[in-house]
Amino acid sequence: MWNHGGNIYSAARLSGYDGDKILDFSANINPLGLPRSARETIVNNLDKVVNYPEPGNPMLVSAIASYLGLNKEHIICGNGATEIIYLTIRAVNPHKALILAPSFSEYSRALNIINCDIEYFSLREETGFTLDTGGLLSTLPNGYQMLILCNPNNPTGTIINGFDMKRILEKCRKLGIYMLVDEAFMDFVEEQHKFSLSKSIAEYQNLVVVRAFTKFFGFPGLRLGYGLVGSNRLKLIMENIKEPWSVNILAEKAGVAALGDREYIGRTKEWLDKEREYLYESLKDIKGLKPFRSHTNFILVKILHSSLDAGILQRLMIDRGIFIRNAENFYGLNNRFIRIAVKNRQANKCFLQALQEIMQSEEHFNES
Amino acid sequence: MWNHGGNIYSAARLSGYDGDKILDFSANINPLGLPRSARETIVNNLDKVVNYPEPGNPMLVSAIASYLGLNKEHIICGNGATEIIYLTIRAVNPHKALILAPSFSEYSRALNIINCDIEYFSLREETGFTLDTGGLLSTLPNGYQMLILCNPNNPTGTIINGFDMKRILEKCRKLGIYMLVDEAFMDFVEEQHKFSLSKSIAEYQNLVVVRAFTKFFGFPGLRLGYGLVGSNRLKLIMENIKEPWSVNILAEKAGVAALGDREYIGRTKEWLDKEREYLYESLKDIKGLKPFRSHTNFILVKILHSSLDAGILQRLMIDRGIFIRNAENFYGLNNRFIRIAVKNRQANKCFLQALQEIMQSEEHFNES
Repeated sequence: MWNHGGNIYSAARLSGYDGDKILDFSANINPLGLPRSARETIVNNLDKVVNYPEPGNPMLVSAIASYLGLNKEHIICGNGATEIIYLTIRAVNPHKALILAPSFSEYSRALNIINCDIEYFSLREETGFTLDTGGLLSTLPNGYQMLILCNPNNPTGTIINGFDMKRILEKCRKLGIYMLVDEAFMDFVEEQHKFSLSKSIAEYQNLVVVRAFTKFFGFPGLRLGYGLVGSNRLKLIMENIKEPWSVNILAEKAGVAALGDREYIGRTKEWLDKEREYLYESLKDIKGLKPFRSHTNFILVKILHSSLDAGILQRLMIDRGIFIRNAENFYGLNNRFIRIAVKNRQANKCFLQALQEIMQSEEHFNES
Repeated sequence: MWNHGGNIYSAARLSGYDGDKILDFSANINPLGLPRSARETIVNNLDKVVNYPEPGNPMLVSAIASYLGLNKEHIICGNGATEIIYLTIRAVNPHKALILAPSFSEYSRALNIINCDIEYFSLREETGFTLDTGGLLSTLPNGYQMLILCNPNNPTGTIINGFDMKRILEKCRKLGIYMLVDEAFMDFVEEQHKFSLSKSIAEYQNLVVVRAFTKFFGFPGLRLGYGLVGSNRLKLIMENIKEPWSVNILAEKAGVAALGDREYIGRTKEWLDKEREYLYESLKDIKGLKPFRSHTNFILVKILHSSLDAGILQRLMIDRGIFIRNAENFYGLNNRFIRIAVKNRQANKCFLQALQEIMQSEEHFNES
């Protein structure tokens, strides 16, 4: 039933390793961990948990507004990006929606809950999972009330440029289609202003952008995300159906601290630049694997050996204390795909060595 | 729009007092504050926030099961009791519901969101807001699919005994009515086993009990609550529409620690026993006020002076740095009612003195 990365608890039970000892390549979390600024803020604000969070999270909203250079009125905070995704879908309440695939499975789960018809527009392996924008544009006039896509996309790591995003957004507006763009991994992207729709939020009544603290600031356990909503009316509907106090105080305070932590943000960009390249090139050198170019902090990999599939490889890696994401349950992928988070050099080396050993012994098997 | 206690932020802005300096009598939170055990657990587990919470929160579920002496299969954790209330209402999806009034306003808000018809069964002031069980039983056969009540009740502080609760529950079962019982304040009740329906959960397919960590363990800012669900089928529906990772890791760990903290639980009971009595008796001695007997950690008070209403009194108290709950927006109450949390002796004394001064000068005004 559970179809996400990051469940180190079941990995621990399967492997016999202690949860803390497992190298988790299955969840796409910044390996620099919780920023020290956020940690200190949490410790200094522990006494504040005797109070309810402030309705509407105005401190955090202000911090996000200045981080993105946006007007506060478009911002709504959530218990993880997940709450914003579910909230948007319930507020728009579409009867028919289009999702780019493969992608994060919670979009279809949230749509299924409100009994929405779902269709998929597939990114194709032959083109490295990049978007056929023309194809998408001509698919849009088909009775959809909502288009959902993730940019950069999970699990493919591919990205759609700002120009194409605008074309899609304009077409959606013309057709009366709400566009939900999940930018949970956008902070990892170099020159994100060329790709993100955040800055366009005031211009498009049909646009909702979802962003997360989870991945970039390394605290999925705290739960914090936010949405940018173009339409005041839609935002009001969202507020009217939103549960009160959904963002906990410690996440709120940690979020404010993290957004102001330029040192952490800088170190993250340095790390990713170097390590993604290292991991990608190393994966390319392993016979029997095909990594796809990624614009963010994870890499989709295809297994070429016919004797091995993603489930077996995941299991063989767990036995070595390393947890990878079997990507076969992403709509549009199959049991040849795994997804690998980029981690720090030491972890990446461990991972690559284990993988190499497995692939080499597989090589013999394939030859025999 | 915001109609709850605990918004010390707006009180701070209104009064000019620093938020930390305000004595908050508006939210019903244990004044002993965050248990030391929970605080230490949070600090020791800060590194864990780099992981997602475990799906289904099995550690916390186990701790709750042994705290209540229940089977784990009935337990579901939530981002505050609020998530469980909303989740139950969405899962049951009633067309017509009955709510005991006055009570917590989120029941009607959640029902309104799903377009449910709402009717109220009123607790009457003349009988000290105690329930007319016979009257309720004869009202039930009226097409309701759901009955919601809070026990002990917020804001009246009244309680329904276990025998009457069972009669209502049996009648609901016969009529095919789901019964949602909010026991958010039950941990404060002396001999709670005589009142709580927790132990009956396995026997009643139509019962959902909601409980909170927020109030008793003094951490509303962390967000943690849980539900006990009698029907496996209903619990499955709830799990199917529940957002993943809704409970943050720190709340989960703090919850486990708090449930095992017998010293804190003991001190809380000692404090409440003494201070509720002190506060009630002192309020009774103030001319122009009528407090109602409470079984939990807050007291409903009626203002008898015609020259004063709840809004004015709240404002006069804020000017002295004390924040009380204006209870006029509870369905069935009016601008004569305020709700007061029981706090520690020092705070209670401050509060009583300020209140006394205001009431005395009001006395002159009434006489003049």
